[in-house]
Amino acid sequence: MLKVGIIGAGGYTGAELVRLVYSHPELELVMVAAREKAGKRLGEVLPSVVGVPKLAELMLETFEPERAAELVSRIDLAFLALPHGASARAGKALFDVGIQVVDLSADYRLKDAAVYGRTYGEHPAPELLKTAVYGQPELHRAELRDAKLIAAPGCHVTTALLPLAPLLREKLIDPNSIVIDSKTGVSGGGRTPAPAYHLPEAAEGVRPYAVGGRHRHIPELEQELSLVLGSEVRVTFTPSLLPMTRGILCSAYARALPAATEEACRAAAKSTYANCPLVTVLEGPALPDTLWVRGSARALIAYALDPRTRMVIAFGAIDNLTRGASAQALQALNVSRGWPETLGLPEIALFP
Amino acid sequence: MLKVGIIGAGGYTGAELVRLVYSHPELELVMVAAREKAGKRLGEVLPSVVGVPKLAELMLETFEPERAAELVSRIDLAFLALPHGASARAGKALFDVGIQVVDLSADYRLKDAAVYGRTYGEHPAPELLKTAVYGQPELHRAELRDAKLIAAPGCHVTTALLPLAPLLREKLIDPNSIVIDSKTGVSGGGRTPAPAYHLPEAAEGVRPYAVGGRHRHIPELEQELSLVLGSEVRVTFTPSLLPMTRGILCSAYARALPAATEEACRAAAKSTYANCPLVTVLEGPALPDTLWVRGSARALIAYALDPRTRMVIAFGAIDNLTRGASAQALQALNVSRGWPETLGLPEIALFP
Amino acid sequence: MLKVGIIGAGGYTGAELVRLVYSHPELELVMVAAREKAGKRLGEVLPSVVGVPKLAELMLETFEPERAAELVSRIDLAFLALPHGASARAGKALFDVGIQVVDLSADYRLKDAAVYGRTYGEHPAPELLKTAVYGQPELHRAELRDAKLIAAPGCHVTTALLPLAPLLREKLIDPNSIVIDSKTGVSGGGRTPAPAYHLPEAAEGVRPYAVGGRHRHIPELEQELSLVLGSEVRVTFTPSLLPMTRGILCSAYARALPAATEEACRAAAKSTYANCPLVTVLEGPALPDTLWVRGSARALIAYALDPRTRMVIAFGAIDNLTRGASAQALQALNVSRGWPETLGLPEIALFP
Amino acid sequence: MLKVGIIGAGGYTGAELVRLVYSHPELELVMVAAREKAGKRLGEVLPSVVGVPKLAELMLETFEPERAAELVSRIDLAFLALPHGASARAGKALFDVGIQVVDLSADYRLKDAAVYGRTYGEHPAPELLKTAVYGQPELHRAELRDAKLIAAPGCHVTTALLPLAPLLREKLIDPNSIVIDSKTGVSGGGRTPAPAYHLPEAAEGVRPYAVGGRHRHIPELEQELSLVLGSEVRVTFTPSLLPMTRGILCSAYARALPAATEEACRAAAKSTYANCPLVTVLEGPALPDTLWVRGSARALIAYALDPRTRMVIAFGAIDNLTRGASAQALQALNVSRGWPETLGLPEIALFP
Repeated sequence: MLKVGIIGAGGYTGAELVRLVYSHPELELVMVAAREKAGKRLGEVLPSVVGVPKLAELMLETFEPERAAELVSRIDLAFLALPHGASARAGKALFDVGIQVVDLSADYRLKDAAVYGRTYGEHPAPELLKTAVYGQPELHRAELRDAKLIAAPGCHVTTALLPLAPLLREKLIDPNSIVIDSKTGVSGGGRTPAPAYHLPEAAEGVRPYAVGGRHRHIPELEQELSLVLGSEVRVTFTPSLLPMTRGILCSAYARALPAATEEACRAAAKSTYANCPLVTVLEGPALPDTLWVRGSARALIAYALDPRTRMVIAFGAIDNLTRGASAQALQALNVSRGWPETLGLPEIALFP
Repeated sequence: MLKVGIIGAGGYTGAELVRLVYSHPELELVMVAAREKAGKRLGEVLPSVVGVPKLAELMLETFEPERAAELVSRIDLAFLALPHGASARAGKALFDVGIQVVDLSADYRLKDAAVYGRTYGEHPAPELLKTAVYGQPELHRAELRDAKLIAAPGCHVTTALLPLAPLLREKLIDPNSIVIDSKTGVSGGGRTPAPAYHLPEAAEGVRPYAVGGRHRHIPELEQELSLVLGSEVRVTFTPSLLPMTRGILCSAYARALPAATEEACRAAAKSTYANCPLVTVLEGPALPDTLWVRGSARALIAYALDPRTRMVIAFGAIDNLTRGASAQALQALNVSRGWPETLGLPEIALFP
Repeated sequence: MLKVGIIGAGGYTGAELVRLVYSHPELELVMVAAREKAGKRLGEVLPSVVGVPKLAELMLETFEPERAAELVSRIDLAFLALPHGASARAGKALFDVGIQVVDLSADYRLKDAAVYGRTYGEHPAPELLKTAVYGQPELHRAELRDAKLIAAPGCHVTTALLPLAPLLREKLIDPNSIVIDSKTGVSGGGRTPAPAYHLPEAAEGVRPYAVGGRHRHIPELEQELSLVLGSEVRVTFTPSLLPMTRGILCSAYARALPAATEEACRAAAKSTYANCPLVTVLEGPALPDTLWVRGSARALIAYALDPRTRMVIAFGAIDNLTRGASAQALQALNVSRGWPETLGLPEIALFP
Repeated sequence: MLKVGIIGAGGYTGAELVRLVYSHPELELVMVAAREKAGKRLGEVLPSVVGVPKLAELMLETFEPERAAELVSRIDLAFLALPHGASARAGKALFDVGIQVVDLSADYRLKDAAVYGRTYGEHPAPELLKTAVYGQPELHRAELRDAKLIAAPGCHVTTALLPLAPLLREKLIDPNSIVIDSKTGVSGGGRTPAPAYHLPEAAEGVRPYAVGGRHRHIPELEQELSLVLGSEVRVTFTPSLLPMTRGILCSAYARALPAATEEACRAAAKSTYANCPLVTVLEGPALPDTLWVRGSARALIAYALDPRTRMVIAFGAIDNLTRGASAQALQALNVSRGWPETLGLPEIALFP
């Protein structure tokens, strides 16, 4: 059993990490931290653990990067669910003292410090960007083996990357034509109340946000798509906020290259994900629903081709908090440790 | 006061017509029909009118096209909220006896009987397709004047057409590059229970449907876009079903032509809709939310341009049952009668 | 046309007042105030009025009670949608200069300043408590005529009072046995974001609040029930927060007195509300749904009797923002002015 | 590993059983049956298992009671998620051939065949009613040991019974005064589409149903409460349908006996459930939310006392499909087999 700490345990990805770590046969949660809620018991902060022995009584701590060395004797690995910037500092401190780090923020996902700088501001530990491994197990499995610093991918990026990667790899779409319409539940916005998430104004409407190429996860998505293709890819990316808590549906559009058929798209995906137990390519006319993966680590993907316009439509559906954050972090950890990829992960959705 | 009949009063567009006709100062609802619910009182079928004097006690009738002549003495105009096919027959029968018809089905929207045939099957009254006026007041105002047979547009079509028309008219987008991602509440699926609309499987997930160019309203949309451009337009159209009752958000993507800027797009729309009280072009960074038009006849439109990819993103937001069906039908009627376009229509949304 | 000001126009009851005043044939909205949002245009604060001529451009002002006299030339009457305490001061200032006041807060509802003091703190204008008329038109119609200071009732109180009053009046229930379980949508909590209304934590669960007799509207409810009975009534009142925006369903339980049958309960209600166009007593086995009154001024009531336990169950269903606040305020105004009680009020729900 | 069959695997309790059995370390799902869906693969019927090895490919069978003997070699135990009547016959057939049965229907819950008859019609196997053990582990733990025929309790009953039992046992409430207001999500209504569960008419409203003592689970609840008290108890029970998928909140009201205080109520519950890992008594002012137990086997209970009316309010909150059906069935199985009560059960909620 590895001893685990979760830094930033009071938010939604923290809550999901707690749920998943508790069920994982090789992990034991021994330490939780949350800046503003330090001094409270976990059961006071996460109502989902009320009554659970050991968990509910865990005391939330304050994590100070400069005192990371004190944790060496307490934990073997740490999950970071912190805001960007803070996460980079915490990750470096823990990594430097030899604690394995799985960072769920954006801080170690980008390989290019200049791109990070334009998007988030100066990086506090740019020297680690090359060390960190991008934690998308399906596309970085070999690198993840024994990785000590893992950058768990973003939720919008995961949903788009999984269906698009096979199409780029097999030259089925024009890489200069990609349009991504990403529909997300509101839990991705975090646990802090705000007008955009106030039930009366969020529960019965849909709206776009961060349009015109302004969403901060675009550089991450383009980095990964470019890596798959072997040359630079730029995408048009527009997210919309839906009246639901969990789930992302990505609808990606691209001009079909001559070899593209619906069957060829599915075949490319099946081949790419042949040994990937947590990606399912839907057959024939089936189309994904985010409800079908709620609470599970699975990603569903599907393809359609409009024969009149020769546009490919690629769909991805995940739970943003599970596959889009916490479960994918554990999946990457599993790979890094040489454990079965699905170890301890929920494979069946909470349905309905 | 004109005497009004609603044929197909038991469904959701029927319910919305009842609400709107009741508030309209020039209309009096005197006759309602609904095949399966004939013999019941309206208050038994539409819980929204329980307790409303006169309305709740109206008896639902069976409408038989062959007995249309008997209605001449009872009603001046009829709204049809029937399935396609049935609506064509009802519309012809009423038109032939001189009753003004506003048809909310797809039956009189297409100008080309062959296109109708490929989409819905043989048209029972193809000779009327040229007579019927497409009831989009903003784009067909002159033709609507004195129109006796009005085909109220479809909800997805309205949401896409309003933001795209100005861009095509002003040559701001490449007409061969249009991708439309249309997000709709489930009330558009009608009042008959089905697994896709069963709350436990519809309330907390999102899913695409009718993908790959298969949605039946594509020919209607292409007809209208082509008319605006003056040459044939084809679009890639993908609808998704959202966990909410009312509202459609259209996100349309197209390659910018050199003249396109966000400001130029807005200016084109403001110019196109300068005298249109029920279309509002949002300013600067504002983006529409379907909640902001719930229950109202208004359409909100907005534009963004991704400077990196030179893609224009055009947004439209409406209430699918109000602007997307029943209110637009009344708006077209107002224009046909020479009344103020907004007469009797709800201009303020039910918020929140 | 009377000139109307709305003080506190930026919240949900303010939004609903704007919608209703706009449709009212005898009222013209000329002045809006909202402390924190002063200086903005109404269309920036209430997205429901975006695009509406005149309304969207109205500038929000700051209302200062000491300058109430300046308003005499601008408005004939004011609706107050302010927090308690502030509302009492604003109401007094306006009343003193001769402007008719309809106060939607709790400040002028209680007749006993001591009870107010125990519930909310010292009343700033106790001398007006006897002057103010409790604005429940069905139960205070005569007093409302020409009333200059109207206290619009609370939403939970309205939903419980309407079905219970006939039972007390006709001696059908034991007044010492009343238990009220009131289920409300979250819009009653107002427009300020807070954890309890954060969509991810409010959209898929139900929870009680203010239990054990601690809800502040209990004294108001007991005052009115006692008035109906002619002697003191105490109730057990428990509200629960439901995952929806609008609507209150009250389920009230009381021990049946010998004369009580389901039919006797209905007959009592029909008699009590014989001339009340906005209360509908459901027939036979029909039971109310809050969706059936969404956006409307109507209250639905129904009764059941458990023959095994001889308990009466009385149901009330309203829209908390419409009948429970803003529409009832206009209804009371209509009565005070001698206009038809339903003038300008929505009688048909937004369904679905 | 015991081999498990689920008869009635295509509905919601079936789906939840599949999820839970899959995670249980001592159980292996080897057989699934579903009358109308026989011949399909489980992955076609339950989208939650798409992509899950072994599960998705399981073929749905038809179960015929007369051929129960053929199952002896295939399964050790069967869960029945069938309509009442059908479940009684299936249960008897399986029991007779020596297969352990956990029945999730109402068929073996009532001890008195006459009461069953009045509620559901003649019982097909009344001789087994005394043999069957009521599967509420907290109250029937000793009897469950080695039970071969277990009747898993109903969801409304569980939610009311858990908070009320300690109060009756400790004589803290008047047993003749109990009023139960039970608020449920719509998944309890099953998977068959119907108007009451059609999203547009169910998603934004609340309504009572089966009022006046007509709900069929009242005899079951009274049987269990009477057993706790040692004499007959009758209750007034009113369910309401909420706009959400999962969860039941029970608010139960009863007149306090002299010994009752909030603290005494909590102490009674803590004592009753001292060795019950899946019942949590909330402290002090905390009140339960059904979201806090979504997908978990836990029941939350809490108490309040209105000092003015001396009414106790007892709250219970569960997930109707998990603790209210499938997880409680497994919990009872665990007890029957002598395994740890929580073995394989989800203890942490899916939050948010």
